[in-house]
Amino acid sequence: MSLGRYLPILIWGRAYNSTTLTNDLVAAAIVTIMLIPQSLAYAMLAGLPPEVGLYASILPIIAYAIFGTSRALAVGPVAVVSLMTLTAASAIAPPGSAQFIAAALVLAFLSGAILLIMGVLRLGFLANLLSHPVVSGFITASGLIIATSQFKSILGISGSGEAMPELLRTLFANLADTNLPTSIIGGTAIAFLFWVRKGLKPLLIRLGLNPRAADLTAKAGPIAAVALSTMAVVLFDLEAAGVKVVGTIPQSLPPFTLPLFDADLWRQLAVPALLLSVIGFVESVSVAQTLAAKKRQRIDPDQELIGLGSANIAASFTGGYPVTGGFARSVVNFDAGAQTPAAGAYTAVGIAVAALFLTPLLASLPIATLAATIIVAVLSLVDFKTPRAIWTYSKPDFAAMATTVLVTLLAGVESGVMAGVGLSLAMFLWRSSRPHAAIVGRVPKTEHFRNVKRHNVLTDPRILTIRIDESLTYLNARWLETFVLEQVADQPDLRHLILMCSAVNAIDASALESVEAINHRLTDGGIQLHLSEVKGPVMDALERSHLIHDLTGKIWLSQNEAFSALMILANDLDEPNKQEDLWLARGLI
Amino acid sequence: MSLGRYLPILIWGRAYNSTTLTNDLVAAAIVTIMLIPQSLAYAMLAGLPPEVGLYASILPIIAYAIFGTSRALAVGPVAVVSLMTLTAASAIAPPGSAQFIAAALVLAFLSGAILLIMGVLRLGFLANLLSHPVVSGFITASGLIIATSQFKSILGISGSGEAMPELLRTLFANLADTNLPTSIIGGTAIAFLFWVRKGLKPLLIRLGLNPRAADLTAKAGPIAAVALSTMAVVLFDLEAAGVKVVGTIPQSLPPFTLPLFDADLWRQLAVPALLLSVIGFVESVSVAQTLAAKKRQRIDPDQELIGLGSANIAASFTGGYPVTGGFARSVVNFDAGAQTPAAGAYTAVGIAVAALFLTPLLASLPIATLAATIIVAVLSLVDFKTPRAIWTYSKPDFAAMATTVLVTLLAGVESGVMAGVGLSLAMFLWRSSRPHAAIVGRVPKTEHFRNVKRHNVLTDPRILTIRIDESLTYLNARWLETFVLEQVADQPDLRHLILMCSAVNAIDASALESVEAINHRLTDGGIQLHLSEVKGPVMDALERSHLIHDLTGKIWLSQNEAFSALMILANDLDEPNKQEDLWLARGLI
Repeated sequence: MSLGRYLPILIWGRAYNSTTLTNDLVAAAIVTIMLIPQSLAYAMLAGLPPEVGLYASILPIIAYAIFGTSRALAVGPVAVVSLMTLTAASAIAPPGSAQFIAAALVLAFLSGAILLIMGVLRLGFLANLLSHPVVSGFITASGLIIATSQFKSILGISGSGEAMPELLRTLFANLADTNLPTSIIGGTAIAFLFWVRKGLKPLLIRLGLNPRAADLTAKAGPIAAVALSTMAVVLFDLEAAGVKVVGTIPQSLPPFTLPLFDADLWRQLAVPALLLSVIGFVESVSVAQTLAAKKRQRIDPDQELIGLGSANIAASFTGGYPVTGGFARSVVNFDAGAQTPAAGAYTAVGIAVAALFLTPLLASLPIATLAATIIVAVLSLVDFKTPRAIWTYSKPDFAAMATTVLVTLLAGVESGVMAGVGLSLAMFLWRSSRPHAAIVGRVPKTEHFRNVKRHNVLTDPRILTIRIDESLTYLNARWLETFVLEQVADQPDLRHLILMCSAVNAIDASALESVEAINHRLTDGGIQLHLSEVKGPVMDALERSHLIHDLTGKIWLSQNEAFSALMILANDLDEPNKQEDLWLARGLI
Repeated sequence: MSLGRYLPILIWGRAYNSTTLTNDLVAAAIVTIMLIPQSLAYAMLAGLPPEVGLYASILPIIAYAIFGTSRALAVGPVAVVSLMTLTAASAIAPPGSAQFIAAALVLAFLSGAILLIMGVLRLGFLANLLSHPVVSGFITASGLIIATSQFKSILGISGSGEAMPELLRTLFANLADTNLPTSIIGGTAIAFLFWVRKGLKPLLIRLGLNPRAADLTAKAGPIAAVALSTMAVVLFDLEAAGVKVVGTIPQSLPPFTLPLFDADLWRQLAVPALLLSVIGFVESVSVAQTLAAKKRQRIDPDQELIGLGSANIAASFTGGYPVTGGFARSVVNFDAGAQTPAAGAYTAVGIAVAALFLTPLLASLPIATLAATIIVAVLSLVDFKTPRAIWTYSKPDFAAMATTVLVTLLAGVESGVMAGVGLSLAMFLWRSSRPHAAIVGRVPKTEHFRNVKRHNVLTDPRILTIRIDESLTYLNARWLETFVLEQVADQPDLRHLILMCSAVNAIDASALESVEAINHRLTDGGIQLHLSEVKGPVMDALERSHLIHDLTGKIWLSQNEAFSALMILANDLDEPNKQEDLWLARGLI
């Protein structure tokens, strides 16, 4: 079974039967119909010839079916990764050129290699660096950029740029060149697709279809838009009127390609490939987890890295470009009843058949229709509800999200991701370096110790207890020294300082050094340092340190024990009830 | 007084009197004598003409005296920063060339600007990224590299390289060119300086000097080595025998220089300048804190950034190179009785006088003597005790240290620092993304809840309590979902899950999303989610979230309250004493 962990196909393959086969085949047929226009569209968004989108939807799906752990995830070209591919490869050569296509292959290869290495080293946790607000902001901003960039095809004008300012500038500069027939096709397609999305399903249900069938039929809307607009072009000879079409697509299975092994190119593409891999991985894992949870299945993020890595390697050897698990197609696959990754393999066969036999039908497909499918698809990614909720809940999280959105819009996708990740990390480190700490006292008649600022508690001028609410690490070691010594200053009666370690899960070597320094400096002032409620693993480590010998005070099992014993010691009391008397005398209980 | 925070001179200047003046003058005289050979030596280590070392010891000291907060810190060229300057500027031009000197000025300017900006933005916490093991490893490795690199001057041969393999290769390749008189001078100087360090002070004490005077006299050892070896060169005409000497040093005050404003050069030097600034800052602050603690004074790290920043800006405008607070000279300054930063200003005057009048005396000073002072100084930085203590205490900290040492030795200082910081950060993030969590139960007859694995505690199959020992952030949000849902699996009787939040100091937006997802998924299994012991600030934030409405269970003030109430609810008991009966029946109390 441990082999099954690395080859999930061995697990689900064993239980495969005719029912699963039927379900998977139905799902595959529906997904294939949906994928054909989408694959063409995303390839063109990435600045690549349309057939590259089909090639990227064949072998990568099969590779994921073998190594991936999600039962319903559909791997292939997706919007955000296509935009990132365009940005990265544009730095090498102009979109559409042979060098550009070669760069896209190298990107797929590098990002496959990065994902595989991360998977083998079990580095999936690095994806945690992308917080939810950063991912959400990034996807919203990318969606806006993609939608804007596609507007040029809707209007039949030229325009370019990787970020909003340049995109808008070129769009407005060329607005006068707007081609009317193209705009009519594009506008109609957008309106039609939005109606398909919102209005077709209710209509079909009213017409008597059951909800599931209505839903799946509505998902085929894009193929209707493709068919109708292609027919319009052919019937009215709109090509002559300036409507740009997809043109001849070679009828062929995916070619065998070899990513260029050029050290210089690799160096230039390494960072973009890393960003693209991690963004693609996070997007894919979120989709996979959502779908798995609905059927109480599990996915293994580290194995997902291997699944997506092999899909990208497969793309780089078969004329494709970077792929990942897409949201829309995975949901369709799931809703259509896919039960195993075999559904993906059947989809691959369907697309291969399309690439071999159906491409001539697509030669007159207007590019504006593809742009319309992209716009409708990505506008659903734009999310205005989440920012409001995050603003209400947490201003720092909102700052990370807003930074990601703004930098992505103004400076492009790569800068956007890096700014978001960098700011989140800096804020996290800042908070870790200034942890919460409280001076605590005993809640009367209990064994509990709480913050003196928030509760009416017992304290003693000879004993100070500081509770540190964080593990002690190199990030806060310096803070610890400063904070503790500040609390001790101007307390002439103080004889005992207790560090209450109930929330300290670790003390690293730098923090140990700081505790030793505190111990040393307190000695000069005649103050003993004690520790209380030290956790098991922390105590095990301390026993291997010098501190255990040098500590002027004691290490107490419980704070209550420490406080009671030191109370007696510091006030020269030798019986527990005298201590009660002392508190009574002070009117504390 | 708030102006005094930014201009500490206003505070100590007010209390200045004739006693302080005398003390400061004495200290300045001693430090000046020590600094002259050291400044020349470090400038040559950095690949710069010797006078640059003198220039870097004049205005920067005065700038620090105005803006710095340490009373005893002596600012100027130091070994590690000199090595980093050599490495960074060598990437621009060969050492000693006019472009190399210009690059060193730009480095000083950039690192001054970086320090000032960090100071103004109060970003001193970023220096926390350099953990104690990383700094310790880096300084040891740099010391070894510097000592090895100076061996070429001791032997009178040529050799170069920024890391050990290249250094050793070039040294061995040229070993046949060894110059005998140079080796004799160098070897004698090393032996003499080591003896001065270890043997002179006891000898002077035995001869009747008081310990402090003996100590300070011993500190003047290097100047004796300089004088004696210069005389030897002049008397025996050793220059003719191939002994390399310092040569003519211009007699002048520091020149006014302008760092080149060249965008390309700035880009190339930005990262080295950042590393150099942070390393210099950490070294300087450690020294300043150690000295301040001895006199119960305080230093302000953010203001130190401004002090060191202005010192470096001053260096860049007066023909210097990057400076920082040095360990050796600061200790001498402190031991010699310096009471205020004015001592530094008097030192600056002393060195300016030396630069004007004494440089002709240094023309015949053998470079081997300067190399000997460097070797003896840096070998005291090499520390073999700390690695052993860290190995015993914490393997991850040792791994960070060992990586820093190895990468510094094999690939140079910049790679070494980055590898150490990167590995420490990666390990910190890894631990933060997999926090400690425990299933807890009630310790019999108390209100305490402890880990079921470590203690004999009361639990109930209908109620599961998970204590999370870490703030919930985006780094562990995904882990939280996986961990909690795993604990819940295969527990058919479970009706209530309590997340005990006593160690949770914050819940960010990503983690909130995960808690909401857990709440949602548990609903399907008929399990209610409760929170207990939520801290005040966390509760304030939660009240602004959806979770507060969607939560299927309750938020309880104390874990004890939650457990008792749910125990009654889940077991259909309605009186507290029945609950006790239940436990009795199970033989638990």
